[in-house]
Amino acid sequence: MKLTQLSTSQLAERERQLETQYQRHKAERLRLDLTRGKPSTEQVALSDAMETIIEGRWVLEDGTDVRNYGGLEGIPAARKLAAELLGARPDEVIVGGNGSLPLMYQYLLCACLHGVQGPETAWRTERGPIKFLCPVPGYDRHFTICEDLGVEMIPVPMTAEGPDMDRVETLVGHDPLIKGIWCVPKYSNPTGHVYADSVIERFARLAWIAGRNFRIMWDNAYAVHDLDDRPMPLTSILDLCRRLGTEDSVVTLGSTSKITRAGAGIGFMAMSAANLNAFRQRIAVYTIGPDKVSQLRHVLFLKNLNGVLAHMQKHAAILRPKFETVLRHLESGLAGSDMGRWTRPRGGYFISFDAQPGLAKEIVRLAGEAGVKLTPAGATFPYGRDPDDSNIRLAPTYPSVNELDQAMRVFVTCVQLAAVRQRLAKA
Amino acid sequence: MKLTQLSTSQLAERERQLETQYQRHKAERLRLDLTRGKPSTEQVALSDAMETIIEGRWVLEDGTDVRNYGGLEGIPAARKLAAELLGARPDEVIVGGNGSLPLMYQYLLCACLHGVQGPETAWRTERGPIKFLCPVPGYDRHFTICEDLGVEMIPVPMTAEGPDMDRVETLVGHDPLIKGIWCVPKYSNPTGHVYADSVIERFARLAWIAGRNFRIMWDNAYAVHDLDDRPMPLTSILDLCRRLGTEDSVVTLGSTSKITRAGAGIGFMAMSAANLNAFRQRIAVYTIGPDKVSQLRHVLFLKNLNGVLAHMQKHAAILRPKFETVLRHLESGLAGSDMGRWTRPRGGYFISFDAQPGLAKEIVRLAGEAGVKLTPAGATFPYGRDPDDSNIRLAPTYPSVNELDQAMRVFVTCVQLAAVRQRLAKA
Repeated sequence: MKLTQLSTSQLAERERQLETQYQRHKAERLRLDLTRGKPSTEQVALSDAMETIIEGRWVLEDGTDVRNYGGLEGIPAARKLAAELLGARPDEVIVGGNGSLPLMYQYLLCACLHGVQGPETAWRTERGPIKFLCPVPGYDRHFTICEDLGVEMIPVPMTAEGPDMDRVETLVGHDPLIKGIWCVPKYSNPTGHVYADSVIERFARLAWIAGRNFRIMWDNAYAVHDLDDRPMPLTSILDLCRRLGTEDSVVTLGSTSKITRAGAGIGFMAMSAANLNAFRQRIAVYTIGPDKVSQLRHVLFLKNLNGVLAHMQKHAAILRPKFETVLRHLESGLAGSDMGRWTRPRGGYFISFDAQPGLAKEIVRLAGEAGVKLTPAGATFPYGRDPDDSNIRLAPTYPSVNELDQAMRVFVTCVQLAAVRQRLAKA
Repeated sequence: MKLTQLSTSQLAERERQLETQYQRHKAERLRLDLTRGKPSTEQVALSDAMETIIEGRWVLEDGTDVRNYGGLEGIPAARKLAAELLGARPDEVIVGGNGSLPLMYQYLLCACLHGVQGPETAWRTERGPIKFLCPVPGYDRHFTICEDLGVEMIPVPMTAEGPDMDRVETLVGHDPLIKGIWCVPKYSNPTGHVYADSVIERFARLAWIAGRNFRIMWDNAYAVHDLDDRPMPLTSILDLCRRLGTEDSVVTLGSTSKITRAGAGIGFMAMSAANLNAFRQRIAVYTIGPDKVSQLRHVLFLKNLNGVLAHMQKHAAILRPKFETVLRHLESGLAGSDMGRWTRPRGGYFISFDAQPGLAKEIVRLAGEAGVKLTPAGATFPYGRDPDDSNIRLAPTYPSVNELDQAMRVFVTCVQLAAVRQRLAKA
């Protein structure tokens, strides 16, 4: 049923019903949180065995004692594991830190100040402030890094196949100050879309238009985070690039934050030898090397890609009913209406919801007042500005199925109420 | 016996003897390394129980699950422990990362680009390139950070009581572009000197001369690293500063790198509320928070300052004979001569050796060719330039007593040989 088909009095009647329902929700005094892409307690507990797995095996095959100083790129076995996850070669990998965000920041800071391949390539030496393309909706942490580094952001629309590549190529071709693009190629945050092979191929060729100092920040955060039991392979952009001689144009990233522990995982990145050599010199300035004990725990626990995939099936079993609960409420409350559209991801951590233009902030406000905290409207856009005020990111992973059930009842009521009121105001 | 008392022929005879001895050392084909301030395997093994100590206690009193996201400043218990180690209040502490070097770098990067207390305080907005005072000899990693950030370094002499404060105050008073100073207040790297209370008091007053944007980088890396069983207390500079209203002028730092595990410890810093608030905003940009599981392991294992001190006694028992071995060789081979002076630290990780001017590089070369690797001459000075070519940092912690014994025989021979040759050339 579409609101446009209702008369003003029907709309008013519907508003009264929804208002009653909304007040009832409020009276329940819920305190639910759908804001963060955070694994649940059940999920992090899947890796508890990691804690006691070392059993005295402190010394690696190459003689390295993981309890002592040494090594900037991470232990060989962790580099090998990360390479499998990123579709890279072990010698292209740096494993460091407890997540990938610091690596992204450090890489872009390096690119701005010191250059991706030496001082003469530093973005700060460009003729003006440099710019980044940001597929939208996207990940707020990426945008924050750009804002922090004074990098101007230009939104480009996401499609179900990935970023709108016609637009990407046109923009890059016309403005030499565009020096990079953010990508979450698999189960993109927040849409859950997976980049099509044809899109990945166009990315691999992008350097031909964009020049040698352009960097694709390939944040493969959900590389193995499939919801069903048929893991979706993602074409290795590094392989593709290597074949075309464009391997310097891409920096791939990932972590085990949502595989083992959030905030106590391992972060990693893979890139061409020339990029890695330049970046290694930077790392040497500000770190005495990564936590090799954490890396060893991970390697002993996860073993290899197959080990990771088996482990991710346990995550999927926990997450499937949660995503299904959210989708069921959206279907039953909003399907066939003109009140919203949403994605049905096969993996990742989010569902992206698009309300009628002009209503996202209002829906988030209504839900908040009824005790359901949602990601602030606009957060999925650069500078927090969603031009349509339409996109809302739903994060179903942390709450229980029961909590999600309650939260989604409230959410659907808020969407309906906001939509009916908007329609009434226009009528 | 002083070389100046020998005749030319006596010197020539002595050179022949030493040359023979040196060749004998070379024939032994040693491969020893005295370069790095690295704990020995025995030392890192002291904390092995940390690995299995959590035993399911993942959730903190405040409800935080250490296996999941959340918290930028570190877990409360780790902040409390770090506060005890740094002489600070828990709410002044940030615990983050696997060592203190990244915190130092991030803080100074923040100070340069974003300001210690907001954009209008950013060092990059100063009238010219800013400068840092560097007590010499000092720690090469500090110098590398400055060089990397384009901060000009001005050496100031170390005394047995700490940096030459007359010189520090004069320099700071005359040049407003001097924005900071590096300090290792206890068992200074490499001299092992401990700052006297009178020096610490002058540091606490330095802001009155230096202005509000000046920062004392108080790297308390060896806060509890005493070699004997009477731990030497260090006056809390933060306490002193707070009494004088100068608490914004100091940033204190430390880590457990040489308490638990090198490279897999926890790093921490303490500073005034105003400094901390500004810095917290920066951290929020590039991290999803520290590894809380590592922090919990540390807290359960070390418990509190008394726990740490008890643990450090075990380190001391391992390190004492090593320092004694080095000192014994220096005494027996060089005492009463004019061939060198050295420090006799009561803690820390190094012994500082001053050869006759012009001989440090030569001694390091000779030792290297005889299989004993020493820290490169000059490394203890900004830009690697020791104007006297005199200082050599000896690091006795990692090798075994037996290896040290061999290495020091070679070292003493090299010092003597170089000194005799120099004298002969002058004769």
